[in-house]
Amino acid sequence: MPETFKRLPSFDFVSATAAAVKLDKLDVLKHKRTEFDLPQDTIYLDGNSLGPVTYTAKQRARDIVEQQWQTDLIQSWNSHSWIHLPQMVGAKIAPLIGAKVTSVIACDSISVNLYKLLCVCLAQQACDTQRTKILTQIGNFPTDGYIAQGLVQQKPQYTLQFIDEKAILSALSEDVAVLMLTHVNYKTGYVLDMATITAAAHAKGILVIWDLAHTAGILPVELDTWRVDYAVGCGYKYLNGGPGAPAFIYAAERHHQQIQQPLSGWMGHAAPFAFTQDYMPASGVDSFLCGTPPVLSMSVLDAALEVFADVDMAHIKAKTLALSEYFLDLWQASGLAQILPCISPISPQQRGGQLAFTHPEAYAICQALIANGVVGDFRAPNVLRLGFAPLYLSFTDILESIKRLVEIMENETYRQEQYQVKQAVT
Amino acid sequence: MPETFKRLPSFDFVSATAAAVKLDKLDVLKHKRTEFDLPQDTIYLDGNSLGPVTYTAKQRARDIVEQQWQTDLIQSWNSHSWIHLPQMVGAKIAPLIGAKVTSVIACDSISVNLYKLLCVCLAQQACDTQRTKILTQIGNFPTDGYIAQGLVQQKPQYTLQFIDEKAILSALSEDVAVLMLTHVNYKTGYVLDMATITAAAHAKGILVIWDLAHTAGILPVELDTWRVDYAVGCGYKYLNGGPGAPAFIYAAERHHQQIQQPLSGWMGHAAPFAFTQDYMPASGVDSFLCGTPPVLSMSVLDAALEVFADVDMAHIKAKTLALSEYFLDLWQASGLAQILPCISPISPQQRGGQLAFTHPEAYAICQALIANGVVGDFRAPNVLRLGFAPLYLSFTDILESIKRLVEIMENETYRQEQYQVKQAVT
Repeated sequence: MPETFKRLPSFDFVSATAAAVKLDKLDVLKHKRTEFDLPQDTIYLDGNSLGPVTYTAKQRARDIVEQQWQTDLIQSWNSHSWIHLPQMVGAKIAPLIGAKVTSVIACDSISVNLYKLLCVCLAQQACDTQRTKILTQIGNFPTDGYIAQGLVQQKPQYTLQFIDEKAILSALSEDVAVLMLTHVNYKTGYVLDMATITAAAHAKGILVIWDLAHTAGILPVELDTWRVDYAVGCGYKYLNGGPGAPAFIYAAERHHQQIQQPLSGWMGHAAPFAFTQDYMPASGVDSFLCGTPPVLSMSVLDAALEVFADVDMAHIKAKTLALSEYFLDLWQASGLAQILPCISPISPQQRGGQLAFTHPEAYAICQALIANGVVGDFRAPNVLRLGFAPLYLSFTDILESIKRLVEIMENETYRQEQYQVKQAVT
Repeated sequence: MPETFKRLPSFDFVSATAAAVKLDKLDVLKHKRTEFDLPQDTIYLDGNSLGPVTYTAKQRARDIVEQQWQTDLIQSWNSHSWIHLPQMVGAKIAPLIGAKVTSVIACDSISVNLYKLLCVCLAQQACDTQRTKILTQIGNFPTDGYIAQGLVQQKPQYTLQFIDEKAILSALSEDVAVLMLTHVNYKTGYVLDMATITAAAHAKGILVIWDLAHTAGILPVELDTWRVDYAVGCGYKYLNGGPGAPAFIYAAERHHQQIQQPLSGWMGHAAPFAFTQDYMPASGVDSFLCGTPPVLSMSVLDAALEVFADVDMAHIKAKTLALSEYFLDLWQASGLAQILPCISPISPQQRGGQLAFTHPEAYAICQALIANGVVGDFRAPNVLRLGFAPLYLSFTDILESIKRLVEIMENETYRQEQYQVKQAVT
């Protein structure tokens, strides 16, 4: 049983409140909060899992169902540019990740897109039969490894190897075809050095696929400048595109002539409405399209992205790290550090948008926090994960969430039976 | 130039109107019309391409965005059963296609799902290296062939062969691994004999995948009884799930232990939230899941399916064929038959929900019809395609659409410049 927790006597919420208010006053992103329709009395520290709805996205959801679909029906493919949504969404994501607008397209899920990209990379490397390995990091988000496993089962000449994310450079060798990495660790928030790793991989002739699930919309990256080969990312986390929003693919322009992916559905055809018998891929990233996209979900993502139109990714990163640093300051000052060890990197430059804490009762603590209006999430077996999305969180929110966490730990509220019952998705 | 058209002098709209009203009175499905929110003054003959919105689906779209996502945020995965949507949708589609509820699941697009199924079938047949062919029909919907082409490029030991859809039985031989057919031809509406073809294929040891894009929700089929192996289908046509609504997969229960598909994303894992490193597939059709589904689109499809809860597929088929037979009667009686040849089967039992007519100016005629409130669609190069979805169309609608088509042909309205301009999607 963990020892009983008492806040440090030196910790004073009243003077902390004044400090938080001051930080909020200086916040250059504070005006963005009004663009989100957040539930009252909720401090939402789970934007790393599902971003909240903006007013613009909400309005689009009504428009697309009650105007576009209902009234204009099939003609909306032209009149409301449904057919161009994958490119339109891609063009809005591109500046957030340092990419040319013609190098990004929205489609399918991260899992499906990783499959396409792994196939593309293996085809590009096929001339060198010595390259038989796919490398990925230990502790990568499971679906990334699962997809590589599925592919390797189909192509037994390849093997999948899991390597420690702190020792990637030493694992790069000339028998590696593809290095597939997630930039920000989904659990700890640990950030890999994309520029250095990509350059080192290229020096060994390795192609690199980056998963930006916990990057896009929270950390600036420079895919073109860093000469990244391929990337995927997620629409429903920091991009706030709604539950299960479509994912995206990035392909460096220099590879655009070599994209040959097996999920060759009609939307990736050079002329989908010519209805020819033989597949002829569209040029560039358009050839990553496969079936008819989920237009409702894709259009809402398109609208959600408008919140990024007038903000600088450098400001987003700065505030994210300031919020999480502030949380850590309070976690230290309150004494929570003694009972809830942090497994995220202490250096803010090595972190993404979240912090992760371990506790044997992490699940129940997370449930008790939710019941007290602070929404974070649990990652098995013992991680409480809190996200610091900067467009709708204030420093006062952070102080308040620490306050409630302190109370929950002091009172051992999490031991109540209702917080112990596991739900299907946690 | 086509000859000038004049309606037959014997054709009388006034007496035809009385007949149409009488047919509407006898219609056992006429009450379903009130469940759809159709635009005023539109006769929608394109449900075969994009079904219209129901009030239930519209309400769900509001609920999921403005209640579930907005207010309950990440907790909705449990509290609103987002995690179970693929199974819930599958269970609603199952009775429409003669399947056990545990044999159908909603996921991805038809294109992606065909890729999975082709891989599953080839793996099941791999022990017999003589089976090197994938057969499909000439004139299948292009994406089906494109996906098979993409797969064959990855697996060069297989070849894809296109066969005449009227000579399928004679093409079945012991070098065929998989027969992949669309049940209702997307252009002509020609229906293949699913029971007979499936049995004949099985007699030669061939696995059969049926594409039900133009079947589900309009023609009853008995997948379990007819011992179909696998099937895919579409959520956005006759199931009215909204633009790009997710597709579905059917797998016969006898194959559930042998499903091994390469798009092994986390949602198809036996325990997705255990976050283990190694993939272990869920049992049965759940293993067809891959990435996080587009929840907004999936939930709206779930709501749309409620319109089928109290109707009998036999009534749906009977009214569909009655509507299209009535259209053909009027097409004959008015003289349109002389100028707009029908390429759909004349026998109603050989047809799905649509009729197709050819004309050198089919594109412009379609545009002129739309401008006059009758929405059909064009299929390159010269086909006008009209769909007869029975849940919201009346016999009076059919008469009215014939009347407008007669006027357009008599006055050569379609020759006006604005109807000649091609749009991206037609």
